[in-house]
Amino acid sequence: MALAYLGLKKPDPAAVISSPPPPFKFTQDELKKIAAYKAVEYVESGMVLGLGTGSTAKHAIDRIGELLREGKLADIIGIPTSTQTHEQASSLGIPLSDLDTHPVLDLAIDGADEVDPDMNLVKGRGGSLLREKMIEGCCRKFVVIVDESKLVDYVGGSGLAVPVEVVPFCWKFTAQKLKSLFEEGGCVAKLRVLPENGEPFVTDNGNFIIDLYFKRDIGDLRAAGDAMLRLAGVVEHGMFIDMATTLIVAGSFGLTFQLHQGSSGTVKSSNEVF
Amino acid sequence: MALAYLGLKKPDPAAVISSPPPPFKFTQDELKKIAAYKAVEYVESGMVLGLGTGSTAKHAIDRIGELLREGKLADIIGIPTSTQTHEQASSLGIPLSDLDTHPVLDLAIDGADEVDPDMNLVKGRGGSLLREKMIEGCCRKFVVIVDESKLVDYVGGSGLAVPVEVVPFCWKFTAQKLKSLFEEGGCVAKLRVLPENGEPFVTDNGNFIIDLYFKRDIGDLRAAGDAMLRLAGVVEHGMFIDMATTLIVAGSFGLTFQLHQGSSGTVKSSNEVF
Repeated sequence: MALAYLGLKKPDPAAVISSPPPPFKFTQDELKKIAAYKAVEYVESGMVLGLGTGSTAKHAIDRIGELLREGKLADIIGIPTSTQTHEQASSLGIPLSDLDTHPVLDLAIDGADEVDPDMNLVKGRGGSLLREKMIEGCCRKFVVIVDESKLVDYVGGSGLAVPVEVVPFCWKFTAQKLKSLFEEGGCVAKLRVLPENGEPFVTDNGNFIIDLYFKRDIGDLRAAGDAMLRLAGVVEHGMFIDMATTLIVAGSFGLTFQLHQGSSGTVKSSNEVF
Repeated sequence: MALAYLGLKKPDPAAVISSPPPPFKFTQDELKKIAAYKAVEYVESGMVLGLGTGSTAKHAIDRIGELLREGKLADIIGIPTSTQTHEQASSLGIPLSDLDTHPVLDLAIDGADEVDPDMNLVKGRGGSLLREKMIEGCCRKFVVIVDESKLVDYVGGSGLAVPVEVVPFCWKFTAQKLKSLFEEGGCVAKLRVLPENGEPFVTDNGNFIIDLYFKRDIGDLRAAGDAMLRLAGVVEHGMFIDMATTLIVAGSFGLTFQLHQGSSGTVKSSNEVF
């Protein structure tokens, strides 16, 4: 795979727009890998690292394993966000621990299913939203890596799901309550099932996932999140509000970086062409 | 057991105060039973009923079973709040269903571990807080039955626990976060364990319970609840805010009734002497 972006100087943003198209088009997976490798540049020896879940995070973990083997990184401790990531990181020889032992992390790297203009995320289409939120909620820096297809105008704007983890007990009742909360958003609520047998998908915590689909912007995300959490059957929702500190987007023409400052919104962005 | 209160006329409140002490003292369990039997007077044939969990609710369920056997009640459907209650109600021949089939209930009857002056409750010392909250949150009427030892000046004021259901994953981390939320309340957070072997108590939903002990009033309960729910490892807390519609308190001198009207506080109270 071409990693021509490595070592590039920071470009003039105007140049990004006026650049001729690259001689070839990256696949979506290549774009994910470019963003992931760039994120790993933030990793330093001695760090406690949150390791995300999903196809983009997988590339970052592979890269961290590679740098450890090459001796370019040392004394890393990884905190995996799923059993799947635990297995991948173990097989790469990355030393692992947990939040009980390391309640503060230096950095977490993870993908996202959607990113809105304020850098709020939707996560959990891979089913690990609860552990991801626990771990990524206590990081000094949380770097989110996506390809440009994940950028949306509003949460739910891709037409794909906002996942909600619920207890299995009377899940239909909880799904109905969730749907009622977002009646104005034209909400549809569906139990996530395994494609192979139609059985409910079960999370690492033994719970089910209700996927919410919105036709319209649901407005105040913090209020929407609190309303969901107040439903007794809801364990956690997949909106990660004001959590990402750095966003790396790999698009056809290069990498875009955004830094986030608290609830005041997105600040500072820059670009790198491939 | 003496059930001398049955059929008594509503007394003059002043008379309650000036009444001579009864010829004998009721035990705590007798007081629970008196309150429970009184609550069952609200039950009518054809109702869908939430059946609580714990020593006080048990008396109410026994009484419902008795009235069904005697033909004084018919066409009752019970929605049990725990596997324990499910077993008790089944053995009494009470027809059972669930929230998925009956998402709106006519009436729920349950005990509480604490009741504050605004009729906010602490529940879950029996470990069933999540199912209780799901079921009792969708009742037209929620009758709470306690003996007078459960009345407190503020939530946590009995010195006993406010329970919080958490996912087992990194529960120590979650316990520490809960403790930090209530630093000013002098909070102590303890994992609930089984007295026989010291293993964690596991809820009907496969989760753990963190018991929170407060030295002081924690203030705004709604804000405190939302802050707990925002912690990703927290599934539900044991504060039942603005949920009880009727409170029956059995004390040494008689029964006290309180009706609750929304968030505007407690309205209307009356007494019956034994």
